[in-house]
Amino acid sequence: NFASGPEGAGKVFASYTIYKGKAVLSAEPVLPKFYKLDSGHVKVDRQGVILLTFCPAIGERKYDWEKKKFFALSPTEVGSLISLGAGGSCEFFHDPSMKSSAAGQVRKSLSIKPHADGTGYMVSLNVVDNIEKTSDRFVVPVTAAEFATLRVAASFALPHLLGWDRCILQSTQDVPEN
Amino acid sequence: NFASGPEGAGKVFASYTIYKGKAVLSAEPVLPKFYKLDSGHVKVDRQGVILLTFCPAIGERKYDWEKKKFFALSPTEVGSLISLGAGGSCEFFHDPSMKSSAAGQVRKSLSIKPHADGTGYMVSLNVVDNIEKTSDRFVVPVTAAEFATLRVAASFALPHLLGWDRCILQSTQDVPEN
Amino acid sequence: NFASGPEGAGKVFASYTIYKGKAVLSAEPVLPKFYKLDSGHVKVDRQGVILLTFCPAIGERKYDWEKKKFFALSPTEVGSLISLGAGGSCEFFHDPSMKSSAAGQVRKSLSIKPHADGTGYMVSLNVVDNIEKTSDRFVVPVTAAEFATLRVAASFALPHLLGWDRCILQSTQDVPEN
Amino acid sequence: NFASGPEGAGKVFASYTIYKGKAVLSAEPVLPKFYKLDSGHVKVDRQGVILLTFCPAIGERKYDWEKKKFFALSPTEVGSLISLGAGGSCEFFHDPSMKSSAAGQVRKSLSIKPHADGTGYMVSLNVVDNIEKTSDRFVVPVTAAEFATLRVAASFALPHLLGWDRCILQSTQDVPEN
Repeated sequence: NFASGPEGAGKVFASYTIYKGKAVLSAEPVLPKFYKLDSGHVKVDRQGVILLTFCPAIGERKYDWEKKKFFALSPTEVGSLISLGAGGSCEFFHDPSMKSSAAGQVRKSLSIKPHADGTGYMVSLNVVDNIEKTSDRFVVPVTAAEFATLRVAASFALPHLLGWDRCILQSTQDVPEN
Repeated sequence: NFASGPEGAGKVFASYTIYKGKAVLSAEPVLPKFYKLDSGHVKVDRQGVILLTFCPAIGERKYDWEKKKFFALSPTEVGSLISLGAGGSCEFFHDPSMKSSAAGQVRKSLSIKPHADGTGYMVSLNVVDNIEKTSDRFVVPVTAAEFATLRVAASFALPHLLGWDRCILQSTQDVPEN
Repeated sequence: NFASGPEGAGKVFASYTIYKGKAVLSAEPVLPKFYKLDSGHVKVDRQGVILLTFCPAIGERKYDWEKKKFFALSPTEVGSLISLGAGGSCEFFHDPSMKSSAAGQVRKSLSIKPHADGTGYMVSLNVVDNIEKTSDRFVVPVTAAEFATLRVAASFALPHLLGWDRCILQSTQDVPEN
Repeated sequence: NFASGPEGAGKVFASYTIYKGKAVLSAEPVLPKFYKLDSGHVKVDRQGVILLTFCPAIGERKYDWEKKKFFALSPTEVGSLISLGAGGSCEFFHDPSMKSSAAGQVRKSLSIKPHADGTGYMVSLNVVDNIEKTSDRFVVPVTAAEFATLRVAASFALPHLLGWDRCILQSTQDVPEN
């Protein structure tokens, strides 16, 4: 319909991006994956995420996108971020290879800590690779206004990450009489 | 449009599911039912609900879906859940056979109580069947993040449960000049 | 699309209705009216409202819909209702014949006052007709859960009452290259 | 679809307008601009804004639209407005010719300050033109209800200003089996 056209291939890329002195943080919604049941009905195969991308700065207003690292917030982690109260903080730990033979190799942790003066949050991503012996750290200070923007956008996205926007549509050919 | 296709049969199944040691709790929106008036207009016949499904655990990460029990939250009960304040709790009592000859046979109660330390809620369902002489109890501890996710998803669904999303669409063939 | 079909006539009636001992209160969104400019663009002619309907009870669970009275909340009055804080109240005064020769004949006032114990609100409508010498009063106690439900539904409707949902759609035929 | 028709030209104009004694303030969403990538996918070229328009009053309920001045709130500035807490204020500074040879010529500042008694906000726009030697000032007192209405409408618009509403649509032709 929009730019997807009849070929069905068009994706839309839209992110909320926060550029700071040491790093850039970008957030975008990634939709759930569905599959078709034998009955013809459709079910959620894998829930969507809010994908966070961090890149290091390599100069004034220049960022090295080759060195980007990802952190994918699950719906519940998005719930945690959305509901951060005054002075609240949260931290998430991911192993991208969980449940596979490479489990334990890479460890990612995302931390959101409020500034003491209430003017915003420090958002940090640490990525440790135990095999490659590498360690990456990104620190992005996020103002209260930027966090509020992210919170509203994430609240909008959350029902879509669960697939609930697809549930609430229904065919109308079968509205009965009386 | 989505997977409903011209046959009009496709439903989409998407739930928010919380797996815990003793039981699993799953929530999904169920749409209202409409009917057509003689005038050709459409009216809500029965409002939608947020359907909660509880199943007992029968081993580590194994759940017995044959033993599932339901509790359907009406729009006003969803309003109660959404507006739970700090330290607030709520409890709902249902008789699935209310207004029928079987009234009083089955009694269901759903309780949402906050943990004293503010880290989340205990959600319990009790189902007593006075004829079969059975009593089922499910207890699911829900973290603050999980409850926030459920709250945002339920707030999204609520206008749809009332059918208000259908009201706010309108034909545009009749936009007058001037 | 939904039940409007190619004939374009289908409306959808969906309300949130609160039945109490002395009266019933029903709320539904009424969409804005648009008109077409010479340029072919479309503009809001009259903003939408949340229409409140009150009826008196004439027996146990029986209501006299012939005696119904209306109160139409403008977008700003909806904003007032949505933002009622703890212990807050609001009151609105309408003259349905404002700006006409019948101005001053009928005076309506809607009042929303919190119960002292925080369990809900008393919603009252007074309609005084100075010519017919009639005075109608409806009082509906609304629980905190019912008010929360109304608040969420009204927040969903508000951008639609302003016509902002129509602004945020746009044709995609003109997405340029590069 | 709506009034855009097959010609694709129809825009919809809908604003939230606050008329006061000295000036009028109008708010409307302006959508992002997209462009098509070589791959056929679509990307946000320029984010949307909430456009504020101020006009001076020239008599009782008469406004001089020829003298209108604009202030375009970016998504993050909208986040700032949405998240204003009790007693909070915010101020934004714009140079419309930033990054061009005319930089520094015109300086705009928008200020939102709460009334001490909590009944609303004073919204002021100052526009200073250093070349023309002109200075315009608009002051619009906004009630708590009017600000709440603006806050809800802006929260609705914000994900659309980022283009996130376009991300969360997806083609369904490719829902796989199993």
